[in-house]
Amino acid sequence: MRVEIWTDINCPFCYIGKARFEEALDGFAHKDDVEVVHRSFELDPNAKPGETGLVVPYIAKKYGISEAQAAANEQGLGQQAGALGLPYLTEGRDFGNSFDLHRLLHLARDKGVQDAMIDALYRGNFAEESSVFGDEETVVRLAVEAGLDEGEVRAMLADPDAYADAVRADEREAAELGANGVPFFVLDRKFGVSGAQPAEVFTQALTQAWDDRSPLTVIDSTDGGDACGPDGCAVPQA
Amino acid sequence: MRVEIWTDINCPFCYIGKARFEEALDGFAHKDDVEVVHRSFELDPNAKPGETGLVVPYIAKKYGISEAQAAANEQGLGQQAGALGLPYLTEGRDFGNSFDLHRLLHLARDKGVQDAMIDALYRGNFAEESSVFGDEETVVRLAVEAGLDEGEVRAMLADPDAYADAVRADEREAAELGANGVPFFVLDRKFGVSGAQPAEVFTQALTQAWDDRSPLTVIDSTDGGDACGPDGCAVPQA
Repeated sequence: MRVEIWTDINCPFCYIGKARFEEALDGFAHKDDVEVVHRSFELDPNAKPGETGLVVPYIAKKYGISEAQAAANEQGLGQQAGALGLPYLTEGRDFGNSFDLHRLLHLARDKGVQDAMIDALYRGNFAEESSVFGDEETVVRLAVEAGLDEGEVRAMLADPDAYADAVRADEREAAELGANGVPFFVLDRKFGVSGAQPAEVFTQALTQAWDDRSPLTVIDSTDGGDACGPDGCAVPQA
Repeated sequence: MRVEIWTDINCPFCYIGKARFEEALDGFAHKDDVEVVHRSFELDPNAKPGETGLVVPYIAKKYGISEAQAAANEQGLGQQAGALGLPYLTEGRDFGNSFDLHRLLHLARDKGVQDAMIDALYRGNFAEESSVFGDEETVVRLAVEAGLDEGEVRAMLADPDAYADAVRADEREAAELGANGVPFFVLDRKFGVSGAQPAEVFTQALTQAWDDRSPLTVIDSTDGGDACGPDGCAVPQA
């Protein structure tokens, strides 16, 4: 079974939702048969690459709330994260364009360390006094900590085309699947869970998707296809 | 969309079927949205690791046919392969236990070179005067040609536990999906194609699976999940 998770590094509920999903997955009987893939979704695709700013004034201005309210929201998010044992910096977190981070997550997937990479980016963004949006050295350090090769990471970041199509393909798929926010969880392309739901909802989704695995519809030619099995290969006899 | 292909390196119809599938995929309008994964299936799991022998006498003995008939079968396979432009050694091909080759294909998948790795193994087994079953140096050479790191390949091969569970999980899934021979193609876990079918059958399967992509069933809690979207994060207001 496959679970695809659309996320953005800018998204606190993605950070929190991942932990809740993992709590459900850890308790799921068929855990070893579940493959998790992280997919790209940019919350703020129009943010200027490399530019960043503090979240509180940005959020306050963007959504027309007071800075006090925006700061209180961060405190609330910190409490939700804390309840899951996740470190969360309620002051000083910044925001920015995440396109390069998504490209990096695609490289990490190709190298088998995507989950470690997204955890490192979340840690960098939500738990450390560092900027994953404005400081490439921080991004490179996190990538190396996640197991990637420094040279490969620098080369990939320097090439704006690398994985750009893969990020856009993920975003196109998100739209086709009806996701207009993140986190967005898709199980075997049949079931969807939107948002940082309680762990019980993820348990229900995993169970329902598992139980719903259905027999395949067989597509065949009139003659059948030649195949090899335990009794040999069906080679046409001369 | 995802296509999973269960195969064995021992299986000539897997080699031929992959080429026919790729012919269909190359002509498929949504090719860039198709992800291909190769999965493990051992045709002869009881073959003693490291031991090998020529296919013709082995097949003759195993299935109670004459060696002349077995040799004619190889000629027939060579003609089918040749029709697709695939090199095929009709004499001298050997057989053996493929467990380690499947472990290697899992490593290759983690490193983003699985397709190149399976092509290299097919080439080694069907087109070259080399043994992928009896000669680890050949396997290492092919792996390096496919883009893997020699040291990592040697370390993986030397550790019998590496990817062993992943191979067995693939085989368990094949049984659950009803595959009793290979190649076995599964599209989005909904459609199955068994055997080296003509390219038209794969075209039909790709088209049908694409058209059948259905809206997700949403699993939700009463309150909905907290999410971030273009209009911000639904942070509970203090």
